Amino acid sequence: MVYKFRKENKEEPERKFRIKAVLLDIDNTMIPTSSFAKIARTCAIDSLLLGGLQVDREVLMEKLNHIIKKYGSNYPGHFDILLEELHVPKPLRSKLVAKAVIAYHNAKQILLPYPDVPATLYELKRRGHKLYAVSEGISKKQWEKLIRSNIDNILDGAFMTEDYNIQKQPEFYEIILNKIKVHAKQCVMVGDRVEKDIIPAKSIGIHTVRVLTGAYKDRTSNVDADYKIKKFSEILKILPLLEKKLSKGV
Amino acid sequence: MVYKFRKENKEEPERKFRIKAVLLDIDNTMIPTSSFAKIARTCAIDSLLLGGLQVDREVLMEKLNHIIKKYGSNYPGHFDILLEELHVPKPLRSKLVAKAVIAYHNAKQILLPYPDVPATLYELKRRGHKLYAVSEGISKKQWEKLIRSNIDNILDGAFMTEDYNIQKQPEFYEIILNKIKVHAKQCVMVGDRVEKDIIPAKSIGIHTVRVLTGAYKDRTSNVDADYKIKKFSEILKILPLLEKKLSKGV
Repeated sequence: MVYKFRKENKEEPERKFRIKAVLLDIDNTMIPTSSFAKIARTCAIDSLLLGGLQVDREVLMEKLNHIIKKYGSNYPGHFDILLEELHVPKPLRSKLVAKAVIAYHNAKQILLPYPDVPATLYELKRRGHKLYAVSEGISKKQWEKLIRSNIDNILDGAFMTEDYNIQKQPEFYEIILNKIKVHAKQCVMVGDRVEKDIIPAKSIGIHTVRVLTGAYKDRTSNVDADYKIKKFSEILKILPLLEKKLSKGV
Repeated sequence: MVYKFRKENKEEPERKFRIKAVLLDIDNTMIPTSSFAKIARTCAIDSLLLGGLQVDREVLMEKLNHIIKKYGSNYPGHFDILLEELHVPKPLRSKLVAKAVIAYHNAKQILLPYPDVPATLYELKRRGHKLYAVSEGISKKQWEKLIRSNIDNILDGAFMTEDYNIQKQPEFYEIILNKIKVHAKQCVMVGDRVEKDIIPAKSIGIHTVRVLTGAYKDRTSNVDADYKIKKFSEILKILPLLEKKLSKGV
């Protein structure tokens, strides 16, 4: 058995048409954020139970999910509301919230990308593509995910909607193309959400690849991606196909 | 050499007068919070330098301290302001803030009490005193300190001003005495700050011990504590003296 690592200096077919830039969604495309958030929340709930709260674990989880849905995942007081709703009196509530927050943050220390992501990114770089994370959300929180999961240094850059006071709409993708000085036709967007990652990018001529991961994998849409893949690493097969097709002027 | 741990079942002189409760300030009395905060900030500053920011380390530290003084230590955006003041553009700023926040939180994982604190607390408990943390500040942040430094389970309880919409004023100490059902004369307050820990407690008849630690150790005051100690563990010598004195009706 031969030890396999990333391949160096592999022979490449000459490419007439070049995809210069690959835009990459973060949440549930490169990093299984939802799964890790669920783990962190479960740790927090368990710390409340260990702290003496006598409420059924499933009930707590359900209530917490409801609160997160109502106030948004970036709201900083989920556990305060949870314990308020359970009528836990203030001094005890503060202690339990502290326990939950510590457990949540301890769990958050571990944030790994999908296992095939780093090797795929290195291979894409080796083939000469520029790589940019493209994400909707609070900029420093998104950067925190890239840094904690050790992806940040592989990328050539990242674009977060918050920094441009915009959402993942066609104008955002226009801004990115202007910044990186690449034409839409030389660019691919990879993401898991049709409405955010595929439709707006496609509308301005960017090629699109949809990764069928996370909660949106079964969503159907009239406008869909040019390619669909089940695993992130399949992008390595898709890009040469796309470049070949474009070279032929199809 | 004999292995020394906390003493169990040691003979105690019979005490006619009992100090029933010991109230204990947290910051810089039981936990050297200021030192740990300084370490965490230094780690954060270093992460900015490692992230490529080319500003003198001392200048960054000075600017950060100025911002913390201006906005208060609990303001959540110190590093955002620091980088804004240095005119770091928004997308890069978010990345650097994320790096600083990660470094700060990683450093915060480690929070130890003064080395003599746990053994002293165990010995006070063994002698039959009830122990309560008494602190000004955001309740869940203060609980976080007690939990992280592993003091929370030794204490009989904790009172944080935020839970009572009050500051460390005489009324707060009155509330505590009512809650724990102990008379002021059967109670000692231990703290490092004359204005917060000593004067208001003393004004309602609580005995007071001042620990000469932290930034306030050289502060002089017209009204001062009944006893001053240099190390937290000296409370173990002070309490029997106090009880003896009170038994004699001095």
